[in-house]
Amino acid sequence: MEIIKDGSVTSPRGFRAAGIAAGIKKTGAPDVALLVSDVPAPCAAMFTQNLVQAAPIAVCKEHLNAHGDSMRAIVINSGNANAVTGQEGLANARKAVTRAATELGLEPGQVLVMSTGVIGVQLPISNLLAGISTAVEVLSNEGGHDAARAIMTTDTRPKEIAVRVESSAPDSGFVIGGMCKGAGMIHPNMATMLAVITTDANVPRGELQEMLKQAVDDSFNCISVDGDTSTNDSVALLANGLSGVRPERETFQSALTFVCRELAKMVVKDGEGATKLVTITVSGARSEAEAKQIASTIATSMLVKTAIYGRDANWGRVLAAAGRSGAWFDPQNASLRFGNLPVLKDGTPLPFSEEEALKILSADEIEMVLELGVGQASATMWTCDLTHEYVSINAEYRT
Amino acid sequence: MEIIKDGSVTSPRGFRAAGIAAGIKKTGAPDVALLVSDVPAPCAAMFTQNLVQAAPIAVCKEHLNAHGDSMRAIVINSGNANAVTGQEGLANARKAVTRAATELGLEPGQVLVMSTGVIGVQLPISNLLAGISTAVEVLSNEGGHDAARAIMTTDTRPKEIAVRVESSAPDSGFVIGGMCKGAGMIHPNMATMLAVITTDANVPRGELQEMLKQAVDDSFNCISVDGDTSTNDSVALLANGLSGVRPERETFQSALTFVCRELAKMVVKDGEGATKLVTITVSGARSEAEAKQIASTIATSMLVKTAIYGRDANWGRVLAAAGRSGAWFDPQNASLRFGNLPVLKDGTPLPFSEEEALKILSADEIEMVLELGVGQASATMWTCDLTHEYVSINAEYRT
Repeated sequence: MEIIKDGSVTSPRGFRAAGIAAGIKKTGAPDVALLVSDVPAPCAAMFTQNLVQAAPIAVCKEHLNAHGDSMRAIVINSGNANAVTGQEGLANARKAVTRAATELGLEPGQVLVMSTGVIGVQLPISNLLAGISTAVEVLSNEGGHDAARAIMTTDTRPKEIAVRVESSAPDSGFVIGGMCKGAGMIHPNMATMLAVITTDANVPRGELQEMLKQAVDDSFNCISVDGDTSTNDSVALLANGLSGVRPERETFQSALTFVCRELAKMVVKDGEGATKLVTITVSGARSEAEAKQIASTIATSMLVKTAIYGRDANWGRVLAAAGRSGAWFDPQNASLRFGNLPVLKDGTPLPFSEEEALKILSADEIEMVLELGVGQASATMWTCDLTHEYVSINAEYRT
Repeated sequence: MEIIKDGSVTSPRGFRAAGIAAGIKKTGAPDVALLVSDVPAPCAAMFTQNLVQAAPIAVCKEHLNAHGDSMRAIVINSGNANAVTGQEGLANARKAVTRAATELGLEPGQVLVMSTGVIGVQLPISNLLAGISTAVEVLSNEGGHDAARAIMTTDTRPKEIAVRVESSAPDSGFVIGGMCKGAGMIHPNMATMLAVITTDANVPRGELQEMLKQAVDDSFNCISVDGDTSTNDSVALLANGLSGVRPERETFQSALTFVCRELAKMVVKDGEGATKLVTITVSGARSEAEAKQIASTIATSMLVKTAIYGRDANWGRVLAAAGRSGAWFDPQNASLRFGNLPVLKDGTPLPFSEEEALKILSADEIEMVLELGVGQASATMWTCDLTHEYVSINAEYRT
């Protein structure tokens, strides 16, 4: 498997995309993205588990039921989440897919729709519809990067990747491309932001859905920026089969998980106000679920996240967070290290060099390993620090 | 019931206290408090539910088992939590109670001990022991305020209250006094900081424990500053009976709950970096437990707390937090108001005056009411905003 330089959702064969500015964002930045597969594609998707679900999610679920084996396009807007917008919001989401379908000569059911931005405000629908028409005109095989830019909200940079998987057999290669957005309201609960993944591999829909679930569980569901789960989280994977390759399940799964995990880490690194990517591994737990529960509690602790920002080896906060997670362990058996620096061994604090700790905590990427010593299971979560800039961004977001 | 002006834990008859500086805090601020009842007192207490429990909590539990009906004193230090300190920490906690018992002529089992401060660092035990001896010398009936000062950590002010309850019958009056500390690592899970409550009412221990649990559930367990539950949370209530009054259960419960609730609100108002006290009421839920689950998720949402700081009526974040709490409701039935300003009615956004919203959100105290419309149960939580100052305090705490 190799990473394609400047890869995007249009790296696999038979995908075109566009990203344009339709005036939904007041800044004039790009805010409408369109992705089209040249042929009908089986589609796997996952959506937020939040009880409050945005209008586009309801429309996507309908369309996947009816046309999940022959999806053709995805319309995405940023700048407005179309969430908690009642019947008008639902009607607007339908208008968007209908406009795209009409312009592209498709059934409306072959088009998905995603939205991201502020909650509780009606979409400026005429801007969106005009934007879709413009996007159709500029669709191209090189449009992936523009699309990735058009789905950004508080993201500071687009998040894209593509990988090519070859085997020794001739014509055995396929490509997976992906883009996502997300910097705030990020906390694992199925899918945790907007992500679109494309591939020219030939994979039937049922298998595609199983593999997407596995990949998401091991990637997007392992990240947290602020502990808040969005109303709009959506991940969709289109497999148009145009490579003619039917990959081994294991080969495809491993490439798909890689793509999802790289995208997920991009989200955390670009977390609102974040200066550090923190990898938290909990090992020696009784079960993977308990390991994840503890890792997740540490990853969302405001006290841990501010200590990381302050480059403070305040490991007591890590242990205190673990202790309140609800999962069981015996603190007497717990050991903890930051990078290669042990700070706690079998429940007893170790003397350590503050200078060495400061060096480790000054890096852009920090590893934290908590060994519980009560079992064999482990889990890893990725989080970021909590900074002054996070507060600034979120105290001023809507206004 | 009347609030006693400048009331403290020494307002009830037969309690003496002291607060002195023993050099545990590097700043030289007071850090050792001692409270003594002149006669043996039944004692009710509650401790943190965190798996990681500080050494003093283990000692308190032993002593309450053996001498819960005849407790005499409580030693408290700030500046060091004596948590995750292994056998040495346990030995230090025992040394502290033994020193107090010796100086006061008591059984060590008649003395409780509490600690608060940094986790994972051994107590400077000689400072603490010398401090206890000094505190014994200066014990007085006016020492309540000094004690309340000596238990502070990141608190910016002492937290004290006392109430006198009289009835028409002669000699029917009793007093309840209380003090607490807490500004960070505050999140409901039984008891959420250090609190000491004294009364000269005559109440048997079993009943005292039941009433304390009820009062704590309705006060300290309804507040959140940062979602982090401490390793040291402790609440103790001493009832020395010296008023000679055996109050009606309802009378005592209501005064006790009042005292605990006032202290709890003082903690939130003085939450690290906080500028606002936010009262979150969730009504119309299927059960009180679900109402509390939703209120708690809103109260700990970083996005809600930063919006409050920014005086931003970003009610979508409130609804999104409610939706991910795990408790059920139908967003179509939900209504929300900030103060008297409705922003959502039966799932549909209402137009509202931003000017009016800004006025409401600029106050020091803000009320938020989410009506779910699916049942009759309700719950209230108190929280504070998330500010730049919070990040500054916690990025620099240990160093």
